Amino acid sequence: MQNFSFEIIASSLRSRARAGVLRTPHGDIETPSFITVGTQAAVKAVTPDDIRGAGSQAILANTYHLFLSRTHEVIQGAGGLGAFMGWDGPTLTDSGGFQVFSLGFGRDHDIGRSSTLFPGEDIQRFSKVMDVKESQHIKILEEGALFRLPDGTKKALTPESSIQIQEAIGADIVFAFDECTSPLSTYDYTKEAMGRTHRWAERCLAARTHYDQALFGIVQGGIWEDLREESCRIIGGLPFSGFGIGGFLGRTKEEMWRVAEFVIARIPDEKPRHLLGIGTSEDISEMVRRGIDTFDCVAPTREARNGLLYTADGRLSIGKVAEREQYSPIDAGCACYTCTTSTRAYLHHLWRQKELSYYRLATIHNLFFMNARVSEIREKILRGEF
Amino acid sequence: MQNFSFEIIASSLRSRARAGVLRTPHGDIETPSFITVGTQAAVKAVTPDDIRGAGSQAILANTYHLFLSRTHEVIQGAGGLGAFMGWDGPTLTDSGGFQVFSLGFGRDHDIGRSSTLFPGEDIQRFSKVMDVKESQHIKILEEGALFRLPDGTKKALTPESSIQIQEAIGADIVFAFDECTSPLSTYDYTKEAMGRTHRWAERCLAARTHYDQALFGIVQGGIWEDLREESCRIIGGLPFSGFGIGGFLGRTKEEMWRVAEFVIARIPDEKPRHLLGIGTSEDISEMVRRGIDTFDCVAPTREARNGLLYTADGRLSIGKVAEREQYSPIDAGCACYTCTTSTRAYLHHLWRQKELSYYRLATIHNLFFMNARVSEIREKILRGEF
Repeated sequence: MQNFSFEIIASSLRSRARAGVLRTPHGDIETPSFITVGTQAAVKAVTPDDIRGAGSQAILANTYHLFLSRTHEVIQGAGGLGAFMGWDGPTLTDSGGFQVFSLGFGRDHDIGRSSTLFPGEDIQRFSKVMDVKESQHIKILEEGALFRLPDGTKKALTPESSIQIQEAIGADIVFAFDECTSPLSTYDYTKEAMGRTHRWAERCLAARTHYDQALFGIVQGGIWEDLREESCRIIGGLPFSGFGIGGFLGRTKEEMWRVAEFVIARIPDEKPRHLLGIGTSEDISEMVRRGIDTFDCVAPTREARNGLLYTADGRLSIGKVAEREQYSPIDAGCACYTCTTSTRAYLHHLWRQKELSYYRLATIHNLFFMNARVSEIREKILRGEF
Repeated sequence: MQNFSFEIIASSLRSRARAGVLRTPHGDIETPSFITVGTQAAVKAVTPDDIRGAGSQAILANTYHLFLSRTHEVIQGAGGLGAFMGWDGPTLTDSGGFQVFSLGFGRDHDIGRSSTLFPGEDIQRFSKVMDVKESQHIKILEEGALFRLPDGTKKALTPESSIQIQEAIGADIVFAFDECTSPLSTYDYTKEAMGRTHRWAERCLAARTHYDQALFGIVQGGIWEDLREESCRIIGGLPFSGFGIGGFLGRTKEEMWRVAEFVIARIPDEKPRHLLGIGTSEDISEMVRRGIDTFDCVAPTREARNGLLYTADGRLSIGKVAEREQYSPIDAGCACYTCTTSTRAYLHHLWRQKELSYYRLATIHNLFFMNARVSEIREKILRGEF
């Protein structure tokens, strides 16, 4: 039985955009698709029924977080991530490689990976570009990454243990363990880290024992074309079922899309491409145009919890006093559960009172909004109108 | 059109227990019934659909809290409490009288109203029984109660303003403004406060302008039979649509039930009786046996949020390590949403990780449990088996 396949069913003539179907043991993902992030085997504030109702097709959990709380053991006992959560659709896990950056250099310097989280003014804080293999929170070795936890204990993740944990979690799509480099890394360090990522990729392929999970490789190389080219050649030449685009892509949106475009043109066209951890509602068209099939991002759920609700006219700040007596839904045209049951006035009240139900209702709306936008684009590709 | 009526359809031959139907403009409440508390026009952590799914028939919101945030104005603009919340069933509001106690004497001395929140050992702290008409947080006058808020501002509630606010909120059943006395009040003070409550009751009746809302009077008098008898005679003789039993009922469960029984025998039998703010899952049978038709209590929702889940064998502490790998529902026989979708292992994980979805799932279960127990008792009364 073929457990995993990817079929491209329509391609745009004017761009790299394409519509496809990613088949997994737990059902199909119609691409392009926004993958909903459920870090701790739970999408924050909502349940699987809510996520399904919001149009989400697949959930991505974080290996590092589940490993720290040893929840991967409990998940294995439950029969896998979907069974544990009560989600019968496709699932993914990242490899923990992003935490090598976010809990190491990223935490030390309070910066994020994408340019939107890294505005120009912050660069001024770093007079000297820094390359850290060792910091307060992490040490990177050829063997793997050693995390120092706030309580003083140490936890190691290696390509082999990442695969072992991801096999215990049992998601349909898993990622190779990589070293995600920072926006401040030099060419030389990015090259060195990329070499490690390539050796780790081969070790991940060798370590796997569950062939019903699709293993995706991750392309690194930062913003340098020769490095990205090399990474595409090496990772793209390995027997992965799909590819993740990782690492730093650029300081501006333009640079980001240029690097993504460059990578996509150099990895096998017939395999699915996932953009790791990037994608706000504004980015969807740009990503799809460049040939991204799937992407995951915490923005819709996180922004919902921060009081920002998506509308066709941009983000609505629900806490503003102007919403106090708006007896209309967030978005009159929206068919989501929240918009069909709650007014802005009520959501404003729940937000002001810090009522827990606010977080669920807001999350459902933002997820629905994201999924609906991606779905509309897919329909356009199928009709040849994108 | 008759907006409000109460019909007793079966009575127990061996006790005061009875099954009835309380008809309101927003639907029927089959009694006995547990009324779900939604303090801020929201039942904490859940939505109206969840509450309906858990078998709740009616929601009680708190006038004092909605008044403080001036939400009663917004609720009025929305067309009333049910319309504001998206709840199409019956609604109730208390009068703010309980906060005269809980935010005054209760807050100053960190004690609750019921004996379960007032264990014997705490009494030792009070060498002298205290009667406070004025404290740090509240001042009680013949005119009404003056609340001093943490930010220094003052807010007044009078019988007239309580009714006015409750009419703005527009619940189906509203309560007269009363002075809820404390477990430490003397006979003399309880008598004085009761006199005020009786005068306030008449002022509430005179102040009302919306006759589609049923106004319930509240019987006070503490643990003294002559005071309770007088309160029953005066409040019971006024043209209220039903009666609330308020104030301190006793230090032990036995004393509490004795006082409740004493009161119930002395108020008009044909009208509904509501026990204010009291009723854990263990109390249900005892309350119904004494003739309580409806009661409200935050215990099921609050305990859920505190990690305590109801089962036929008592409370389950979901955070205990023993639950970590229990791949079975909270209660195998329970038909609630939570038990049909989630295992103890998953709920344990959500609780440990402080995932917001835990609070919703736990609340749904405890509400369902309470409602199911009350409903079973109603069926028994109807079959003549209680």
